[in-house]
Amino acid sequence: MCSDGDHHSDDVHHETEPQPAEPARRSFLKGALLTAGGAVGLAGTGAALIEPAAAQARANHYYVPATDKTVHWGYFSKLLKPVIEVDSGDFVTIEALTHHANDDAERMVKGDPGLESVFRWDKTGKGVDRRGAGPMDASVFGRGAGEGFGVHILTGPVAIRGAEPGDVLEVRIVDVKPRPSANPQYPGKAFGSNAAAWWGFHYHDLLTEPKPREVVTIYEIDAHGDRNWARALYNFRWTPQTDPNGVIHKIIDYPGVHVDHSTVEENHGILKNVRVPIRPHFGIIGLAPAEADIVDSIPPGYFGGNMDNWRVGKGATMYYPVAVPGGLLSVGDSHASQGDSELCGTAIECSLTGVFQLVLHKKTALVGTSLADLKYPLLETQDEWVLHGFSYPNYLAELGEKAQQTIYEKSSIDGAMRDAFRKARHFLMTTKGLSEDEAISLTSVAVDFGVTQVVDGNWGVHAIIKKNIFAGDVEV
Amino acid sequence: MCSDGDHHSDDVHHETEPQPAEPARRSFLKGALLTAGGAVGLAGTGAALIEPAAAQARANHYYVPATDKTVHWGYFSKLLKPVIEVDSGDFVTIEALTHHANDDAERMVKGDPGLESVFRWDKTGKGVDRRGAGPMDASVFGRGAGEGFGVHILTGPVAIRGAEPGDVLEVRIVDVKPRPSANPQYPGKAFGSNAAAWWGFHYHDLLTEPKPREVVTIYEIDAHGDRNWARALYNFRWTPQTDPNGVIHKIIDYPGVHVDHSTVEENHGILKNVRVPIRPHFGIIGLAPAEADIVDSIPPGYFGGNMDNWRVGKGATMYYPVAVPGGLLSVGDSHASQGDSELCGTAIECSLTGVFQLVLHKKTALVGTSLADLKYPLLETQDEWVLHGFSYPNYLAELGEKAQQTIYEKSSIDGAMRDAFRKARHFLMTTKGLSEDEAISLTSVAVDFGVTQVVDGNWGVHAIIKKNIFAGDVEV
Repeated sequence: MCSDGDHHSDDVHHETEPQPAEPARRSFLKGALLTAGGAVGLAGTGAALIEPAAAQARANHYYVPATDKTVHWGYFSKLLKPVIEVDSGDFVTIEALTHHANDDAERMVKGDPGLESVFRWDKTGKGVDRRGAGPMDASVFGRGAGEGFGVHILTGPVAIRGAEPGDVLEVRIVDVKPRPSANPQYPGKAFGSNAAAWWGFHYHDLLTEPKPREVVTIYEIDAHGDRNWARALYNFRWTPQTDPNGVIHKIIDYPGVHVDHSTVEENHGILKNVRVPIRPHFGIIGLAPAEADIVDSIPPGYFGGNMDNWRVGKGATMYYPVAVPGGLLSVGDSHASQGDSELCGTAIECSLTGVFQLVLHKKTALVGTSLADLKYPLLETQDEWVLHGFSYPNYLAELGEKAQQTIYEKSSIDGAMRDAFRKARHFLMTTKGLSEDEAISLTSVAVDFGVTQVVDGNWGVHAIIKKNIFAGDVEV
Repeated sequence: MCSDGDHHSDDVHHETEPQPAEPARRSFLKGALLTAGGAVGLAGTGAALIEPAAAQARANHYYVPATDKTVHWGYFSKLLKPVIEVDSGDFVTIEALTHHANDDAERMVKGDPGLESVFRWDKTGKGVDRRGAGPMDASVFGRGAGEGFGVHILTGPVAIRGAEPGDVLEVRIVDVKPRPSANPQYPGKAFGSNAAAWWGFHYHDLLTEPKPREVVTIYEIDAHGDRNWARALYNFRWTPQTDPNGVIHKIIDYPGVHVDHSTVEENHGILKNVRVPIRPHFGIIGLAPAEADIVDSIPPGYFGGNMDNWRVGKGATMYYPVAVPGGLLSVGDSHASQGDSELCGTAIECSLTGVFQLVLHKKTALVGTSLADLKYPLLETQDEWVLHGFSYPNYLAELGEKAQQTIYEKSSIDGAMRDAFRKARHFLMTTKGLSEDEAISLTSVAVDFGVTQVVDGNWGVHAIIKKNIFAGDVEV
């Protein structure tokens, strides 16, 4: 992995002024905030962990489009200049683009200025050159700049004014919408790609020939949001694809390579009568980690990142520990749907746009509250608290200098379960004031552990704690 | 492990005639079956996998109480004489007793003739001598007959007339009820015990002193079923307990040891205001395995057994491959509630009574149906299919002669995830006719994998496939 943090300064431009949201919505939001004092709760029944200490009387709503100027591809970095700086309580609409859009560029790129600018790649150059945290000269595998050590298109970073290490950033997901295809051939449709790829859990465990193989399945989603399911359109086996620089990609080893559909065989009529329930969510929401200047976007950690939990969708709230000044929030890896485990390596990878409210909780205001000592990403939905365990909770600190390579050799659900248990115990003891014995018994009889993902290097297990456990006075 | 199948013949008595269900209920059931021809479906919306091939026009309803004569403690065995033989389509009410009842005998044993007969243990002998699949002379650890190599009180076995290896037994769980305390001090209450024990996932990973320790928490359940939550009453640390034979049990190393409450310190007022949602279910439903004469009840496998999935409750249906003539169904390890993972080693262990309908599917009738080639336990609920993966799908066959010891050294969620993936793929390809590529993509985008248990030697991961995925005609 490359650790030179300067060389990507050409890729990310920060001159772009944030664009306002469409006026009607913006004024609605402002109005709402004027009355609510900035502390708008999302969950109808769930009690807030903490009241925003410094809620402001007036919040702004910013808009961050995804363009070659506002995305960074395949990595987090504390050295990135923010595309925008906001105050606690502000709203930000953020466009997220799927890095798999070029699997079917006709449906997922064509006619969309943002996507076209990001995916532009011809003999003269790329819209976004660096793709991954690897060396810019591709001296490891020769795949391309950044080497694809990290693959996700991340929009941002957004800086939060006054955020400092030790604070907690609350990210409220107010809304999530699919990005409609800009190709006039497909009105009202959005599309996503599912790649059963070489990093999938299944790859060396296939029944049928040819083995191994990578298969891409294209799914169709209703862009209006009227239909709560997706359907498969067709699939194809990956064939060697030659990029504009002449590099042949025999497998899916570098993000954004354009698939030439004259080289693949499309199988239509697949998954007949199958409806995939949609669960629009962001595979990645994360803050910049402190431990390294440039960090592969694939393994998740204490900073959030590529958690790939489908529950991180509309109505959910995430809490992250701030590791660097400004926090530096990035969003990407948007999914139309995913199952717990993300077994084959990807979800239905689909561009989405989210509306977020960002609330900063200062460290000094956390003392004695339930967010004190938060050292991991915490998810709140209307009904649940969800704790995220990883094979290594902070692999960047735990695995030494070569952590970003080593983590891929250390993937383990057993380790992630260990971490998820410890975090559930910590949450119950800290937030709910239970003794260790109470926390352990309650965890065994009422907390559900699930397999978040087994494909992101630092594998994940999540613990789901239902809020209604704490809702009652049992002295009846 | 002991493999002498004869020595337990004294422990299990088969003279007991099945007792009829209370007359009103029995005649109701008979009436229902006369009109429905024995093929009563439980799930309102779910299509049955297969129509019972030989549904009979009249079904009987039997009652198997739990007594020292009708239970076997800590093991499965194909050599056990059935307590009853039934026809396909018949109903059986089966009482299940928790092996943790003596953690608080006042609440969970006293005054209940069935429990008292099973737990009887004084200087003259035990109601049920063998407890576990180990040697009767306790020559390994000296703990007691059977050595506690297997701990669950299992009621049965019930033989199904005509069942042969290769057939599939469908077990419909018609009803589940808690067993009320028989102590007049506790009218309308049922009780359960949660032991955070030495085999728990947490045991060597404690924060607070003393380390390690075992802690038992007693929970109270509404015996009428009017309240859908349990509450904790008190907990205590396990102290060395001396059994009537003079053996001192420093840890929870032998089932059914009576806890002398004058030796423990009860901590009341714990888990205040906490309501544990109840999920009454059977930790164990299983058929006798073919591979060994006597099999430890703890590790689950292809024959079902100690799966510890809380979804195996009222309204659910299980399908098991028959391994030995008659099938030999046993039921036990009843739980009032459990979280996915059963982290500390046990659930809320609570005696329950279940009503089951048993439907035999003959191998010859399975050809070309969706139950053909079923080699693993399959769970059907109204909305879901659930596949059960284990660290080793058939550890008895895979791990050689010492399989019953070795499995405890090979526990792995990673392995269970591998097996759950393979079973989900098998189910989708066989039952739904998908290609491997279709099955893998669908699994990644729509199937949820969860951690069933990490405490039973052969650890479990389950795959949840929602039925509504297949409900639609997407050609719209």
